Amino acid sequence: MFKMGANIIDREKREVLFRVFAYDKREVAVVVKSGGAIKELPMTEETPNVYSAVTAGVSLDLLYKFKIDGDQAYPDPYSCFQPFGVHGFSRLIDHEDYRWRDANWQGKDIEDLLIMEIHTGAFSGAGTFKAVAERLDYLVELGVNAVELMPVAQTPGRWNWGYDGVNLFSVNHNYGGPDDLKYLVDCCHQKNIAVILDVVYNHFGPEGNYLPVYGPYFTAKHKTPWGKAVNYDDLYSGYTRKMVLDNVRYWLEVYHFDGLRLDAVHAIKDNSPIHILQEISLTVRNLSLQQNRKLFLIAETDQNNTRIINPLDRGGYGMDAQWMDDFHHVVHTALTGEREGYYMDYGRVKDLEKVYKNYLYTGEYSKYWQRERGTDGSRNPGKQFVVAVQNHDQVGNRAGGDRLSILVEFPYLKAAAGLMLFSAYLPLIFMGEEYGEKRPFLFFTDYGDPELQQAVSRGRKEEFAQFTWENVPDPQDPETFYASKLTPRNAWDRQNQELFNFYRDLIHLRRSHPVLKKPDKDKLEVEVDQENRVAR
Amino acid sequence: MFKMGANIIDREKREVLFRVFAYDKREVAVVVKSGGAIKELPMTEETPNVYSAVTAGVSLDLLYKFKIDGDQAYPDPYSCFQPFGVHGFSRLIDHEDYRWRDANWQGKDIEDLLIMEIHTGAFSGAGTFKAVAERLDYLVELGVNAVELMPVAQTPGRWNWGYDGVNLFSVNHNYGGPDDLKYLVDCCHQKNIAVILDVVYNHFGPEGNYLPVYGPYFTAKHKTPWGKAVNYDDLYSGYTRKMVLDNVRYWLEVYHFDGLRLDAVHAIKDNSPIHILQEISLTVRNLSLQQNRKLFLIAETDQNNTRIINPLDRGGYGMDAQWMDDFHHVVHTALTGEREGYYMDYGRVKDLEKVYKNYLYTGEYSKYWQRERGTDGSRNPGKQFVVAVQNHDQVGNRAGGDRLSILVEFPYLKAAAGLMLFSAYLPLIFMGEEYGEKRPFLFFTDYGDPELQQAVSRGRKEEFAQFTWENVPDPQDPETFYASKLTPRNAWDRQNQELFNFYRDLIHLRRSHPVLKKPDKDKLEVEVDQENRVAR
Repeated sequence: MFKMGANIIDREKREVLFRVFAYDKREVAVVVKSGGAIKELPMTEETPNVYSAVTAGVSLDLLYKFKIDGDQAYPDPYSCFQPFGVHGFSRLIDHEDYRWRDANWQGKDIEDLLIMEIHTGAFSGAGTFKAVAERLDYLVELGVNAVELMPVAQTPGRWNWGYDGVNLFSVNHNYGGPDDLKYLVDCCHQKNIAVILDVVYNHFGPEGNYLPVYGPYFTAKHKTPWGKAVNYDDLYSGYTRKMVLDNVRYWLEVYHFDGLRLDAVHAIKDNSPIHILQEISLTVRNLSLQQNRKLFLIAETDQNNTRIINPLDRGGYGMDAQWMDDFHHVVHTALTGEREGYYMDYGRVKDLEKVYKNYLYTGEYSKYWQRERGTDGSRNPGKQFVVAVQNHDQVGNRAGGDRLSILVEFPYLKAAAGLMLFSAYLPLIFMGEEYGEKRPFLFFTDYGDPELQQAVSRGRKEEFAQFTWENVPDPQDPETFYASKLTPRNAWDRQNQELFNFYRDLIHLRRSHPVLKKPDKDKLEVEVDQENRVAR
Repeated sequence: MFKMGANIIDREKREVLFRVFAYDKREVAVVVKSGGAIKELPMTEETPNVYSAVTAGVSLDLLYKFKIDGDQAYPDPYSCFQPFGVHGFSRLIDHEDYRWRDANWQGKDIEDLLIMEIHTGAFSGAGTFKAVAERLDYLVELGVNAVELMPVAQTPGRWNWGYDGVNLFSVNHNYGGPDDLKYLVDCCHQKNIAVILDVVYNHFGPEGNYLPVYGPYFTAKHKTPWGKAVNYDDLYSGYTRKMVLDNVRYWLEVYHFDGLRLDAVHAIKDNSPIHILQEISLTVRNLSLQQNRKLFLIAETDQNNTRIINPLDRGGYGMDAQWMDDFHHVVHTALTGEREGYYMDYGRVKDLEKVYKNYLYTGEYSKYWQRERGTDGSRNPGKQFVVAVQNHDQVGNRAGGDRLSILVEFPYLKAAAGLMLFSAYLPLIFMGEEYGEKRPFLFFTDYGDPELQQAVSRGRKEEFAQFTWENVPDPQDPETFYASKLTPRNAWDRQNQELFNFYRDLIHLRRSHPVLKKPDKDKLEVEVDQENRVAR
């Protein structure tokens, strides 16, 4: 198999091989900045549309870009690090350099996971991987045994949720870069915490996406909310498929992640005989066997479609688990009474009974979607569903980024915790939820392109037309980012501590009680009376 | 996805699209013989290395070949029919023409299968698909509910075992061609018989293989007993992989086969991240869901490697079952006392105890292979293994093609039947075994190439150097083929009828008795005493 990107082939001779796919070009060259000198190396068309060049005696942290048809130079699609952001030079990374301490780590069973979702930039004042690593004892105290990092691939500007990533293999320089990420994963493993990475294969960010320069990575064959679809089934989709599969292996192999959370898989359009999700599943199963450690895949999807989590051997896509939004929406509407936007389909407290056993929408008509929605998930075990009462989307996609702590009275926060932690699903806590953080988690961006800056500010306001929300903060305003950072623990109030203790106690109960430890949704009895009391 | 080969795109206008992969060529054309006229159409490079041409007003049974670089013309790698053999013109086939009668057929559970292996040419005097179709009541009487056809893809000459196939999609003209094969499968389904096709993806035949003219379908990266390996993981392996996956779908979709038996999968060399067998499994699972009928895959392998039959979801190759040679060898050596060649590793009657539960070689040292061999298959259910006391290989790969009926006394044939039919595995009967056929099943070929004719005659003799067999019949002698045809039922003797009745009664017992119907190898108790008595 071709190893793409910049690869050290001889450490002694400081010899580096560059390789890139470039479709239908006249000439391709690599511009190398090494030890103060800049040189341009012509690349040879090794096989059609694959160019390579070898150079020796260079610095092993050199910078490079690819020049296409004598025109501008662009970052490498396989760049491991973009120290100057999405538009800048790519840096060669020597992955052998980091000394891992987790040789005995064998991974975790997915059914045991208790996940905290973390945005690295907003988790701490410093906003870095190192700052997360320093706070792991806090997670251990709480009882969380898995960290799910919102996407870390390179995004435009100084901050971003992560879903505007454009360099799939680059570790965001705002968070510290490759070695710091390895250090974080390594520290987690020392503390018996699994690490899940959120990866985005359904679209690319709107700024700094140079993939179209290189080849047909996108196709007009399908439409998505982000325009042209990522090309998984049109001409030359082999490029994209290889890049994605290489990326899956990269995070698990090179960074030792334990699992991936695949963003919005319903937006991955693929009519190939073998769906890319099936190829991803197979790739991960093979890697797991080869490495002899547990690896898992979690899909985010709004489709309530069991095919995504059904086994490959039955034609499913083989994901270990999926997010179940229905659970959130039922709990959220029960506690807040909200009925706007997509919440119009929810609001019956009685629905709790069903949603502990199955999706809520298992083929019923949805007013919001204006069509039938969902399949029957009753035979899929609870460990195939990740549930949350708050997450980055449900909080952050509100105009004001209001957490539940702002929307309901304090005791309801405890009710929400109980509803989630006594379910037979895999609970996911959104950072700050566990102590009733009152600061918002807002949608923030830092685009450099003036047109895009205006579009995002305007678009954000239009997005909430269906809701009655006013005062939509500007995503481009730095204050929007800083306002979203968590309150430091030393600034907690009494209620913060009380809720934390409550979460901690419930979590430890869930993890130690013989019945709750391996919960079985078929053995769960749920009874709801109209005064909103839940008995089990 | 590209539809390769010759495709009817408009029946009214009699419009046909030709498409072919041809790597690194200057010009490609299609030579069309339609209604007495011959014309040559230049083909356009639709996308790099894919050439196509459209023509209208042609006959829908036209003949064609592809002309490469103004040179010779060659048969289509996707040809559906070679009416004049491997070197001749390809014929366009209108697959919509056949009227199927099996709309309600939903397939069979693999665990219920009782298979007869059939060589179409030797099964009857006529040696055609139609002649097999006429004899299905015989199979129903015997109680067999699945037919496994030895390969039907086009082979050189008038007769061949089938493993010299060179046109993966062509139905052998010696057996009648596409419509007759559809008719046979259709008739089987009417009689509640599943049909399995033996397909060969590990090598191509030595004569008429024009694939190398078209592109790098073979690689010197791996060695096989047939020379260069089929290219599954070297440059441009995408061609081969697509062709094989298209072929898998073709037999199941277009010909309604219920399953495939993949020849010698250990000779498929593939170091890709996703093994081609995994892609084949996924393709078949997807198709099964889509068509809502049961489909299965059976691998032939001598490796005793459970990875081949373990589920995709655990990194296995996802085959439903595999052939288990160890069972044959233990029974064969116990009954015949033979110890030559690979039989040197067998011969202990006591081994029967293990081989009812597991492979015999589960990691032990093998004298014949001169290394450790096998993995533990004790946890794989019996329905994952196909066993035989005779099959085309074990009979036909003896110099004299001697069936067990020639090697042992009559009562031993009943013992062999019992040993197989009371196992918890899927039994496979080799045509003729059920009535103790005494005619041999010899290795026969009909190569046209003089060098090859000499080589096969000489090679056959050398192959048996390890054994003490003499008088090796010449595979090229027509008598060798005719001698291998089954005795017609009206020429059976008393013992033939007696053994047939015995097989029939045991088969019906197995298929009706509550314990034998769904046999469980874990519940099986096997006891062997040294006088060769087997109790259960």
